[in-house]
Amino acid sequence: MSSERDFSDIITSLAKKRGFFWGPSPEIYGGSSGFYDLGPLGKLLKNRLENQIRSAFVRANFWEVECPTVSPAEVWKASGHLDGFIDPVTKCLKCGQIFRADNLIEEQAPGVKISGNSVEELTASIQMLNIICPSCKGGLGPVEDYNLMMKTRLGLDQDAYLRPETATTTYLLFKRFLTFFRDKLPMSVFQIGKAYRNEISPRQGMLRLREFTQTEGQIFLLEKDELEWPQFEDIKNENLPLITYQAQEKDKLDPVMTKMSKAIKEGYFQKPAYAWCVHLAYTIFRQMGFSEKNMRLRQHLPTERAHYAADAWDVEIHTDSFGWVECCGVHDRGNYDLTRHQEFSKEKLHVKVNQKPVVPEVLEIAFGIERPLFCLIDNSFQSESKERDTDWLRFPPEVAPIQVAVFPLMGKPELLEPATEIFNRILDSGFIAQFDTGGSIGKRYRRQDEVGTPFCVTIDYTTIEDGTVTVRDRDSMDQVRIHKENLVEGLKNLIRGTTQFHTFK
Amino acid sequence: MSSERDFSDIITSLAKKRGFFWGPSPEIYGGSSGFYDLGPLGKLLKNRLENQIRSAFVRANFWEVECPTVSPAEVWKASGHLDGFIDPVTKCLKCGQIFRADNLIEEQAPGVKISGNSVEELTASIQMLNIICPSCKGGLGPVEDYNLMMKTRLGLDQDAYLRPETATTTYLLFKRFLTFFRDKLPMSVFQIGKAYRNEISPRQGMLRLREFTQTEGQIFLLEKDELEWPQFEDIKNENLPLITYQAQEKDKLDPVMTKMSKAIKEGYFQKPAYAWCVHLAYTIFRQMGFSEKNMRLRQHLPTERAHYAADAWDVEIHTDSFGWVECCGVHDRGNYDLTRHQEFSKEKLHVKVNQKPVVPEVLEIAFGIERPLFCLIDNSFQSESKERDTDWLRFPPEVAPIQVAVFPLMGKPELLEPATEIFNRILDSGFIAQFDTGGSIGKRYRRQDEVGTPFCVTIDYTTIEDGTVTVRDRDSMDQVRIHKENLVEGLKNLIRGTTQFHTFK
Repeated sequence: MSSERDFSDIITSLAKKRGFFWGPSPEIYGGSSGFYDLGPLGKLLKNRLENQIRSAFVRANFWEVECPTVSPAEVWKASGHLDGFIDPVTKCLKCGQIFRADNLIEEQAPGVKISGNSVEELTASIQMLNIICPSCKGGLGPVEDYNLMMKTRLGLDQDAYLRPETATTTYLLFKRFLTFFRDKLPMSVFQIGKAYRNEISPRQGMLRLREFTQTEGQIFLLEKDELEWPQFEDIKNENLPLITYQAQEKDKLDPVMTKMSKAIKEGYFQKPAYAWCVHLAYTIFRQMGFSEKNMRLRQHLPTERAHYAADAWDVEIHTDSFGWVECCGVHDRGNYDLTRHQEFSKEKLHVKVNQKPVVPEVLEIAFGIERPLFCLIDNSFQSESKERDTDWLRFPPEVAPIQVAVFPLMGKPELLEPATEIFNRILDSGFIAQFDTGGSIGKRYRRQDEVGTPFCVTIDYTTIEDGTVTVRDRDSMDQVRIHKENLVEGLKNLIRGTTQFHTFK
Repeated sequence: MSSERDFSDIITSLAKKRGFFWGPSPEIYGGSSGFYDLGPLGKLLKNRLENQIRSAFVRANFWEVECPTVSPAEVWKASGHLDGFIDPVTKCLKCGQIFRADNLIEEQAPGVKISGNSVEELTASIQMLNIICPSCKGGLGPVEDYNLMMKTRLGLDQDAYLRPETATTTYLLFKRFLTFFRDKLPMSVFQIGKAYRNEISPRQGMLRLREFTQTEGQIFLLEKDELEWPQFEDIKNENLPLITYQAQEKDKLDPVMTKMSKAIKEGYFQKPAYAWCVHLAYTIFRQMGFSEKNMRLRQHLPTERAHYAADAWDVEIHTDSFGWVECCGVHDRGNYDLTRHQEFSKEKLHVKVNQKPVVPEVLEIAFGIERPLFCLIDNSFQSESKERDTDWLRFPPEVAPIQVAVFPLMGKPELLEPATEIFNRILDSGFIAQFDTGGSIGKRYRRQDEVGTPFCVTIDYTTIEDGTVTVRDRDSMDQVRIHKENLVEGLKNLIRGTTQFHTFK
């Protein structure tokens, strides 16, 4: 069965059927591409991922902020998005489909040089080169600038845009941060929130969205901090799976486990502070539950980098659906953004170093949450087998949407009462738990396997006699009886991974 | 000092100075009214409130979902917002200010009947009655329909709107919910997410925003469930501070503590399920940290209710800034919404009861998070006194932005090391903690008082000798020494309120 279907279809239909995500949304009105709903399990999973991200940033001394998702046009003029966040598009005069004009020309007339051309020049090229609609062979209309930001209006007449990332809104708070951090650099802040990109024709489901949840950590620091970064000491002996741009130029695409201290010595990273950020990004993804074997860190080729970026590395995750997926970027943004906002706002966005004004540098970790969410479902998928008559999800216990399920053997008051008490105790200790009374215990195990719940607890008549309950492990399908007084502590150790189930009593 | 300034100004300037919220945002570009940034402490506080809300909904058996904030126009046509979510506005031809036309006419020509008038009729009334700009006495332009939704565009030409509430997007998932809940009603879901209202001229800072975080819980149920709601049994003996509409008609505005069973018997509530929702809303606000004395539940007068609402009660919070503030609405929405979406989408949004299709009823709890966030800062404010030379914030420990601060007496390695170990242990147990090494311990206490941190832990040379640390209580300013091995458990009990500080050793 599986081999005949595209793996991404298997994951998507499983996700829809079991309540992870639905879409394109709104489904009952035909759907709008690039928009998805998170169902109950997808939302639990997303909350888990957000908590892991928060906890990793907070331990690395970042403070969280929340800025508006809608900002006036002048902000986006200053940031460069109004003029630069643009694709040239053309519409088929016959079937009405919209395409990126530059992509079409490059596909149909390889070798033609159009880089930097204006929309008028692109329109002329389309006519001259006889470029046609790839879908219906129709003629194409004039090329227009298409800004990827969604535009709206405040009050009656103020132009505003939905933010395409969170970074800009964070930078605007620079002066406030100086007060909050008592004028001491470096200052580290992060933001988790919605961002919007009006992609022409988004495909690949959850991987390319028009509305998504962006996470961005920013460090404001001086050039000297970039080179003398004390926290680098803590990670200098850690190994990361790196692919440098030099290796890529030699077609070596397998990551090489490299000690951080060596990566600095060899010049893979110029700046210890930046290297530390790459390591933090890697750590965040590990804490979201990705295994080392499915991860690699890839440096951008010099030609790939944004105009403002001195260096850029991506975290990539391997999936069965799409191969390697770019999930996170780590950027050395220099002082481009603050300089621009200083210029446009006329506010001083600098600190004094030896009595001279200096605009600080910025290092950034940026990623959307929906991609790792999809990749984690992909990576957790397990086919049905002769032991188990359903395909199931092997989520790491710390990020599983539901961590513990509680089953009273039957829906009778004498069992419901102790089961509810145990359920509440599990909730009190901070776990996400589900109470299920429907169907046979086997059927209930199966349902929990399908959504990746690592542990199930059954309360039966023996519980009333001797206070023990049955704990069942998803992965091994093994069961043990333990006393209910030891249950919460035991679950804690199992979920944190400090105890393995086979040693658990 | 305090008496000479408006209390809301005191709260707002404190909130800005200490990093709770900043705005109107973006400040460095002059600000756009109705938009605010949450600083590091405001974001911590908001996360706390969201966690309390989540936990209350989950325990009441609601599942969380997340829907897009942008939806195509047809959704808002069906929901009624495109035609009905409208204010008639007029612009001063001299100073350019914009006003609600109906309000101006009612103010300047009391008694004139304009209810239900078209924009043309309102324009005529303004000319006939000589209505002028209240600010500069200038003449007024033609009245226009002003939709309170923010409009945008998807792709090149699809009209879409930023949602003005979350409810509509939740209703669109009804068929998916039926599958997820295995076709069993009632089904309870909630959503926490951004919503947008393009208010003409938003005032009152954080209380009237153009972008805000809306929380909405929805129960889909049958009419018979509304009257036979088993969970009502759990709360029948609880007392709530009620003000019925009959009491308001008699000018009795003091809430009366009323037992829920009595409230049903007396007919204050027609439906036990609805009464249970009002109780749940009250519980959520209690868990966000509001004290009983600052809360009341006010029933809408029949004239106040929305067209679709069979009954409506508000949770109101008393503030020193603005008196009683409406913070949450509980609505009996009937089957209005599902019926509309069934009609417009042509999809079946019903269940079968005795083989006949029935569109379920909906009960709703709806509130924005920024209002309670502001009210909680207001309610927590304590003036400086002879004991304390700064004004401070008495946040309930469970929702305080920072719950524990950890201070090594000095920044020396022999103290930093055990302090870091204790700090990490506190973080591991799920608390929000801050590590502060700056300045004298007195200064550090002061800083934590200013942001409402209930407990501070100091590590000094005695800690190295005998393993004890000093715990200091914000409210009493008392200190005790306890062994570090008992610290986390002790803090847990203090923060949950199961131990009082004066009994704590």
